[in-house]
Amino acid sequence: MWLRGFSRGILTELSRAVTSEAGYTMQRSRPLAKVFVSRRVPQEALNLLRDSGICDIKHWDSDDPVPRTDLLKGVAGVDGLYCLLTEKIDKELLDTAGPNLKVISTMSVGFDHLSLEEIKKRGIRVGYTPDVLTNASAELTVALLLATSRRLMEAVAEAKNGGWGTWKPMWLCGYGLSDSTVGIVGLGRIGFAVAQRLKPFGVKKFLYTDYEPKPEAAAEIQAEYVSLDKLAEQSDFVTIHCTLTPETVGLCNKEFFSKMKRTAIFINVSR
Amino acid sequence: MWLRGFSRGILTELSRAVTSEAGYTMQRSRPLAKVFVSRRVPQEALNLLRDSGICDIKHWDSDDPVPRTDLLKGVAGVDGLYCLLTEKIDKELLDTAGPNLKVISTMSVGFDHLSLEEIKKRGIRVGYTPDVLTNASAELTVALLLATSRRLMEAVAEAKNGGWGTWKPMWLCGYGLSDSTVGIVGLGRIGFAVAQRLKPFGVKKFLYTDYEPKPEAAAEIQAEYVSLDKLAEQSDFVTIHCTLTPETVGLCNKEFFSKMKRTAIFINVSR
Repeated sequence: MWLRGFSRGILTELSRAVTSEAGYTMQRSRPLAKVFVSRRVPQEALNLLRDSGICDIKHWDSDDPVPRTDLLKGVAGVDGLYCLLTEKIDKELLDTAGPNLKVISTMSVGFDHLSLEEIKKRGIRVGYTPDVLTNASAELTVALLLATSRRLMEAVAEAKNGGWGTWKPMWLCGYGLSDSTVGIVGLGRIGFAVAQRLKPFGVKKFLYTDYEPKPEAAAEIQAEYVSLDKLAEQSDFVTIHCTLTPETVGLCNKEFFSKMKRTAIFINVSR
Repeated sequence: MWLRGFSRGILTELSRAVTSEAGYTMQRSRPLAKVFVSRRVPQEALNLLRDSGICDIKHWDSDDPVPRTDLLKGVAGVDGLYCLLTEKIDKELLDTAGPNLKVISTMSVGFDHLSLEEIKKRGIRVGYTPDVLTNASAELTVALLLATSRRLMEAVAEAKNGGWGTWKPMWLCGYGLSDSTVGIVGLGRIGFAVAQRLKPFGVKKFLYTDYEPKPEAAAEIQAEYVSLDKLAEQSDFVTIHCTLTPETVGLCNKEFFSKMKRTAIFINVSR
């Protein structure tokens, strides 16, 4: 779904550029807009670019990031760039791309890899993809939490190595969410979505910590704003959802872990 | 929590038996009630029996089931039996136990392993543990579903074998619950609890099938009653929650699987 929106974004910009230069009429004889796609991306997105009929696509069709030299070669003279957060879009790259570059679409929530000032200076439009992975990230957080608490990895290993026999009451028992306390570090979009998903599992109490209280989100999931220490001490499950900044480096350190309950489960979905 | 209730059940019966035979007064000089515990069970349950001061416990302290001959030896002359569904409690066992046996507590939802008629004939009271695992079973169902759909087992294997490199947009992509259709075979307590837990993941539609429509449960999760065929054809996720009976043997056979979407995920938590 969001891929359609994403490719549409780059197309809108390119088609605006192409048509405006051509006096608001699409001239088929005019050269197609050159677009460099820097990674193997979902086919649906490529199809949108291809089917538009206005794009000449150069594609780094690999699961691995494009090396810098190939990236620089690839962007020379392009009108559009479809990139990921592995590509550093700086002055050097923009100069190499040249004055044709009209739009950069990055398939990422973050845009730290873009030199926004240089981009602005050149009047280049930027597309990015906020929100599109909120649900998926929350779902993966719950998946990791349950797989850990219910010891699925060990269970699968036992099933594979022949250790899975008759049912044993105490064997591979884990910890359930019923009546538990869940601590959320960073009650942003993803942290909130995680709490919404965990609630019907019978969580007794949500604790959260953040730069500042988030009264609206907290009210909806009846979460209590606490210090990081209290969160560590009282939670049966801790999930981490914060950006990596100078303030959050080393946030969960030895001291934090030593305050946690011995049976608590820690899930980090931050970078 | 439920273990407390469970051990309390056996204790209530034994203490009733002991005190009634002793003329409603606890006589410390009276021999303790003999209890056979047929497996390694949670310590909390054993503590309740021990701390009661009225039980003399014989314990088959192993994760593996007690062999029949040891079980028969173990129950000879007991007042109480704490067993699991692996122990067949039939005429032979009851005769071997003898007339002292007053209460059988089985740590199981099912009681197919108990010859109820023989037990009734002897006036023996029976305890079992319905409902206590509904939440845990539903939680494990969701854990299995997410671990499968989000390909956690493959991801863990890659992390272990060194295959985990930089982020790749298409790598290990799974299927999300957002906007999906979930089909539940058997909308009993567990099936219903699974639907409740999956709802906030953004499931678009719940389908279910059962011996007959369950209008109350269905209304609460807005589930539609459909045939097994339609459920197979339309669901992105199928979870199975039904007892193994002559009618359900082979329910999900080759024909069923061939009707499922090629991308659908099938989770069987039935026996």
